[in-house]
Amino acid sequence: MARPRGVERRAEILRATIEVIAERGYRGTTLGAVAERVGLTQQGLLHYFPTKEALLLAVMDERDQWDTGGGSRGADGWRLELLTSMVDYNAMRPGIVQTFSALLGESVTEGHPAGEFFTRRYVQVRGNMAGVLRDEFGDRLPSGLTPEQTAPLLVAVMDGLQYQWLLAPESVDMPEAFRAFVTLLRGGAEGPER
Amino acid sequence: MARPRGVERRAEILRATIEVIAERGYRGTTLGAVAERVGLTQQGLLHYFPTKEALLLAVMDERDQWDTGGGSRGADGWRLELLTSMVDYNAMRPGIVQTFSALLGESVTEGHPAGEFFTRRYVQVRGNMAGVLRDEFGDRLPSGLTPEQTAPLLVAVMDGLQYQWLLAPESVDMPEAFRAFVTLLRGGAEGPER
Repeated sequence: MARPRGVERRAEILRATIEVIAERGYRGTTLGAVAERVGLTQQGLLHYFPTKEALLLAVMDERDQWDTGGGSRGADGWRLELLTSMVDYNAMRPGIVQTFSALLGESVTEGHPAGEFFTRRYVQVRGNMAGVLRDEFGDRLPSGLTPEQTAPLLVAVMDGLQYQWLLAPESVDMPEAFRAFVTLLRGGAEGPER
Repeated sequence: MARPRGVERRAEILRATIEVIAERGYRGTTLGAVAERVGLTQQGLLHYFPTKEALLLAVMDERDQWDTGGGSRGADGWRLELLTSMVDYNAMRPGIVQTFSALLGESVTEGHPAGEFFTRRYVQVRGNMAGVLRDEFGDRLPSGLTPEQTAPLLVAVMDGLQYQWLLAPESVDMPEAFRAFVTLLRGGAEGPER
């Protein structure tokens, strides 16, 4: 009986955290603000998530689960077109993208708990992306590159564009830039010209 | 007389900081460690750089100056091939790349001094990259994209690959991945097939 209630509470805390992130951004998302939102004392919240980092990484993990449909591709995969929609969606939730990007920055510093999370995440995400590319193009892209060679580039473009967009949303159109990258992957809009 | 000495001292501090970064990484690079290396008291160092962030951003700025040959392209530009060499070089200086990546992460958080630096930097870097691409490909890449459409992608790939590489240097070959991206820009190794 205690178990399901704990699981439910945990999910409730994650939902509340996402709301707080959307409203207050990365720095404004304190354990105190989340505890208040969910009707717990800060001590009570610490029972579920011992640190702000642990809470935010759980939110990132949860988001990955949604975005990838339970952590694995469905029977018919999730196509390149769906990635484009995901980037469109991300452009409407700057708080989450900011939180992801800030944590990614911290993850490369010595001994940060986000390091292990992102290291594991990228192994999985590169694998997922290689699967998307194979479903779309087969064993070779129009460029001659393999899905495995291209997957890290696809991930890098998504992550890298987020920084440029967060810093200057009015001059970097993230969804349009990502579409340009997809054009590049396809070998050109109407096939290569020049 | 005081001016040149100050300028010289400042350059000396930046060089010392780069050494400390290489040896101790981002977190280990404290104002105390830099002051000691350069033979100043911490108070003396604060005269030149009031915070660790200010010092590290000055190092990043100095690095950009070197990498771009004084902040502008030379008469014959700096070609795509030179960018590849820069990525090779970066793969040999993980401390600097880690510092850059950590600061970039902080830059997207509210009110961080790195925000203004990176916002300005990316306007310039995207402009430089568009210039590189125009020198190499003219007004259209083989994909049909313009240099201006492609420049943010080029920057994003460089930044994004750095995170993947810092987290798992043994499984992400950053220079090789960047070469794959250049292949993509060129429309394929022997021209597009398939």
